[in-house]
Amino acid sequence: MDLVINDAEAFAAALKTQAKRHKHLVCLGRTHGIHAEPTTFGLKFAVWWDEMNRNLDRLRASRKRLSVGKLSGAVGTYSETTPELEAIAMKHLGLEPALVATQVLQRDLHAEALGVLAVLGGTLEKISIEIRHLQRTEVAEAAEPFATGQKGSSAMPHKRNPIVCERVTGLSRVLRSNAGVAFENQALWHERDISHSSTERIVLADSFVLADYMLAKMSWVIEGLQVNEDRIASNLASSRGLVHSAKILSALMKAGAPRNVAYKWVQSAAMKVLDQGGDFLPRLTEEPWPLEGEKCPLSGAQLAEHCDTKALLGMADVIFKRLGIESEHSR
Amino acid sequence: MDLVINDAEAFAAALKTQAKRHKHLVCLGRTHGIHAEPTTFGLKFAVWWDEMNRNLDRLRASRKRLSVGKLSGAVGTYSETTPELEAIAMKHLGLEPALVATQVLQRDLHAEALGVLAVLGGTLEKISIEIRHLQRTEVAEAAEPFATGQKGSSAMPHKRNPIVCERVTGLSRVLRSNAGVAFENQALWHERDISHSSTERIVLADSFVLADYMLAKMSWVIEGLQVNEDRIASNLASSRGLVHSAKILSALMKAGAPRNVAYKWVQSAAMKVLDQGGDFLPRLTEEPWPLEGEKCPLSGAQLAEHCDTKALLGMADVIFKRLGIESEHSR
Amino acid sequence: MDLVINDAEAFAAALKTQAKRHKHLVCLGRTHGIHAEPTTFGLKFAVWWDEMNRNLDRLRASRKRLSVGKLSGAVGTYSETTPELEAIAMKHLGLEPALVATQVLQRDLHAEALGVLAVLGGTLEKISIEIRHLQRTEVAEAAEPFATGQKGSSAMPHKRNPIVCERVTGLSRVLRSNAGVAFENQALWHERDISHSSTERIVLADSFVLADYMLAKMSWVIEGLQVNEDRIASNLASSRGLVHSAKILSALMKAGAPRNVAYKWVQSAAMKVLDQGGDFLPRLTEEPWPLEGEKCPLSGAQLAEHCDTKALLGMADVIFKRLGIESEHSR
Amino acid sequence: MDLVINDAEAFAAALKTQAKRHKHLVCLGRTHGIHAEPTTFGLKFAVWWDEMNRNLDRLRASRKRLSVGKLSGAVGTYSETTPELEAIAMKHLGLEPALVATQVLQRDLHAEALGVLAVLGGTLEKISIEIRHLQRTEVAEAAEPFATGQKGSSAMPHKRNPIVCERVTGLSRVLRSNAGVAFENQALWHERDISHSSTERIVLADSFVLADYMLAKMSWVIEGLQVNEDRIASNLASSRGLVHSAKILSALMKAGAPRNVAYKWVQSAAMKVLDQGGDFLPRLTEEPWPLEGEKCPLSGAQLAEHCDTKALLGMADVIFKRLGIESEHSR
Repeated sequence: MDLVINDAEAFAAALKTQAKRHKHLVCLGRTHGIHAEPTTFGLKFAVWWDEMNRNLDRLRASRKRLSVGKLSGAVGTYSETTPELEAIAMKHLGLEPALVATQVLQRDLHAEALGVLAVLGGTLEKISIEIRHLQRTEVAEAAEPFATGQKGSSAMPHKRNPIVCERVTGLSRVLRSNAGVAFENQALWHERDISHSSTERIVLADSFVLADYMLAKMSWVIEGLQVNEDRIASNLASSRGLVHSAKILSALMKAGAPRNVAYKWVQSAAMKVLDQGGDFLPRLTEEPWPLEGEKCPLSGAQLAEHCDTKALLGMADVIFKRLGIESEHSR
Repeated sequence: MDLVINDAEAFAAALKTQAKRHKHLVCLGRTHGIHAEPTTFGLKFAVWWDEMNRNLDRLRASRKRLSVGKLSGAVGTYSETTPELEAIAMKHLGLEPALVATQVLQRDLHAEALGVLAVLGGTLEKISIEIRHLQRTEVAEAAEPFATGQKGSSAMPHKRNPIVCERVTGLSRVLRSNAGVAFENQALWHERDISHSSTERIVLADSFVLADYMLAKMSWVIEGLQVNEDRIASNLASSRGLVHSAKILSALMKAGAPRNVAYKWVQSAAMKVLDQGGDFLPRLTEEPWPLEGEKCPLSGAQLAEHCDTKALLGMADVIFKRLGIESEHSR
Repeated sequence: MDLVINDAEAFAAALKTQAKRHKHLVCLGRTHGIHAEPTTFGLKFAVWWDEMNRNLDRLRASRKRLSVGKLSGAVGTYSETTPELEAIAMKHLGLEPALVATQVLQRDLHAEALGVLAVLGGTLEKISIEIRHLQRTEVAEAAEPFATGQKGSSAMPHKRNPIVCERVTGLSRVLRSNAGVAFENQALWHERDISHSSTERIVLADSFVLADYMLAKMSWVIEGLQVNEDRIASNLASSRGLVHSAKILSALMKAGAPRNVAYKWVQSAAMKVLDQGGDFLPRLTEEPWPLEGEKCPLSGAQLAEHCDTKALLGMADVIFKRLGIESEHSR
Repeated sequence: MDLVINDAEAFAAALKTQAKRHKHLVCLGRTHGIHAEPTTFGLKFAVWWDEMNRNLDRLRASRKRLSVGKLSGAVGTYSETTPELEAIAMKHLGLEPALVATQVLQRDLHAEALGVLAVLGGTLEKISIEIRHLQRTEVAEAAEPFATGQKGSSAMPHKRNPIVCERVTGLSRVLRSNAGVAFENQALWHERDISHSSTERIVLADSFVLADYMLAKMSWVIEGLQVNEDRIASNLASSRGLVHSAKILSALMKAGAPRNVAYKWVQSAAMKVLDQGGDFLPRLTEEPWPLEGEKCPLSGAQLAEHCDTKALLGMADVIFKRLGIESEHSR
């Protein structure tokens, strides 16, 4: 457990470093796999860092509860031993005596631990899948480190596959299925049966070793992550301003336009961009206002303001401050 | 969550009451389903109460982390809203604003919650199975409450089945499988995909409702548990003293007898009890000491001392004191 | 897979032998852990043998579907190879060429296999739990083999614990959780991603090895099972005839008695047995018929007929014949 | 079950239609999310259709085994009924009598059924994820149907989200977790306990209804799938011939070139494409052969032959013929 906690701390530190480094690197946000509004690359890491802090809290709470032992005899009644002897033995082991026990410690302790590792695995899976997505040929915004001399493919020399992230994605499945075994292990008969024992030799060992391995690998991935700023910029540019449609809509409403009117106007200009090309802002300024005798309540310059990313960078600062991530790096 | 926590507290209180009531009710301990050393009936409840306290700690920690919300826009950047507006909205909802988010709250929060409910389910499963065991016709030491006018079986009028405990045993399986869904829900794509949503309508609702139902039912079972003290005593007596063999062995060693000699002597007397009947203590006093020219280092009276339960009752007091269960009831 | 199938066949054969051996050994049936109607010890094995036949059908169907391979290039299009070359290679491996593939075989094949092993594990768990129940000190109708020189407990020399059955109970949990990993492995991206690979090194190997081990151990348990006929008889006798109450009720109704009248009469006699002791049949014959001016439509001799086990033995013959278990052994 | 089988047949038919329609539509193959060799769009559907046929075989085998019932009394011994009566009742229900039973049918039958639905769910998850990938803004090769008047996003009018596929992705998690419950339900005590019953009201109902719903939704998706042939072509073109590198390498080796020499030559030309732009074939013809005094064993025209897709289309024909998909549609 200590090893896992140490590695989790190192991994969180790597995430924080990348969060600070890329705090102001504007990139596409994507929901449902579809371009949404812009965000910053650093905010991705900030979300993960915050989540890793929660994982660390869970790991530490589980570790504390698990740090108990017992030497209280065949059914927990100290029939041939004493609480005093138990206290001495536990002190040697760096454990607290369990307040009460049967022949064994109750298995809610182990179930909690493997449940916490399963949640940690879900976090690592999410991060590994994000990097696999960003490394797709069509996206190419980031890539896991590629060791010198590594072959992407024995047959296809141009390939670089995110195999470490794929491996971590897979192993998270093992962590969560092992938690299922630990949940089942709780219901021992009477003062204990030994059905849990055979399984714990498999799932306890595997889950802790795998969690440690996954954290180490993902630290390597995050620390050495190749970030392609040119591609991030060109992908963002490929939306030709459409990613700001929601913000424009919102600004129009604040400026007094009825929602349905503003929506119709924005949608019409957006459809022209999609069908006929061109950029969103010029299309907007050319677009006639749907209401006869009225005109768009915002000027071209005002509209342009809502298409830049100044506000976004300011919000990134606010969020980072709230998180307590001090940023010596900025752009 | 609050409802589950309230019910968990009520259930823990019911366990504590029974623990105190039966603190000094000596009964058989069983390991592997086989008679082991004696314990007290109250200690069973004490083990469960202690475990429920851990479950409560987990529930409260999860509740605290879950008590957040977000109103920060389509990708979490406050593009059309502000942290101030979010703070107001969250205050109305009794939540804290999430420090950082994407389109949604990160799903480690929900995974933790269902993981904690799965561990709680494992605790309830263990207790329900213990009562099913104790209610077996051959054991008959306890039984879940039997409502007046209830029919045990439409065909067999003498039957009383532990159907509530069986139901709880089954439902714990649903709690742990739902946790598996929540673990899988963590790995959303980019700034969110909506794959988690359909499943959460099923598993979040079901898990909380089921946990609540199971706690309520098990509180009813524990509060109204029928404890058959005569049967507990006669089951204990059925071992004819053999359950003290380990304690005798241990006492002989403390008195200076070599382990292999003492083991041989105790085993020989025990086998005569099993093969020819009679009680263990008289058999022991008749049994010749294996070492020529020596005799048993303990007198019959001293042996008898290790076959009574005075020490056990004292140990129950020690354990209860350590747990902080004050006992106004004693026997 | 072949090894598992061979071991499953051997295990089924062991079950069949015990079914035949104990076809006419009358024992208590238990539902909800409570004494129900009598059955025969051989019928327990017959149920398991029938279930193992279904498991064998599933294993063979999965094996057949899994016996394919592919050598069709990086995305399954034979860009650098040919179907003819693939056919030659597969023939050498004793496999059929997959009809179509991507870079890899589709993982529904492996998911099915681990799903089938999980169901097999559930069968072995059920059998192992039954034996653990029958070996309980209070039941003692059967016990797993006890190797000469084996110590039941280092501290308590009289103990014999069903540790092999407990181990099999536990390992079934690993089989079913591994199936969950295999189900998740199905959804590979595009023409393949490699996330399944790391997990398959764990779960495929573990599940097949464990299934094989569990089958071998349970064959040893079933072949050497210690059956305590005296205890089976005395446990049955302990019900003092009450287990026949449903059959008596049914016979009375066939003889023309209204259900509510017959139920009341049977219940009243049964309660006297439970409260005051004595056997059920004499209590019945002494019990006044509830309807004034009428009497029980069945004589004492006729009632007695419904309390013997002749009909049960005949039914066991009918069921065994239907199953196709020829019985050279009979009692 | 019948409903699920009918819907699965309809879904397989929809896949077959799309397979035939797009048999010769050349598109990028992708492994690890990275561009690999070309394949055809129809082959994707052919892989799924073949897998659905296996799912249908599994569903039908499970259905056949499940089509049994029992009316053999409280412990399966026909104590108050007869096999003849059971046969009549089962005939009315369209079921076969179970060959042997306890109080209930054995739960391996239900475990198999939910296991088979979990595998089916894995297939549907894979297909739904493929479509979500193809619908990504950066890929845009296909999209799930978009009902007229549907809003992609209330805030962002240009969005079309694959929400049906996302929903199916999520629900597959519920199918596999429910299978875990069914595996646990197998190990009932003695002649039955009722722990399975409460869970079956949840998981049996949910799994069958969900499988049916998912099949219906995915049939709608596949039948109305929007395929963007222009984008498929332009994505393919974006590789500028590099996707043929493996085939060229293989052809050179067949023509006598040592592997390491050929690999070096191909890689060098590929790297120039990646670094300096241009197309792969011209770069190859300009690339000096690494061995002094020798030259590339293949002429430019021969190299070009390995960069076209004639052979691929022929292979698609071969595979479709092997699968037994007759193709009235071709391009």
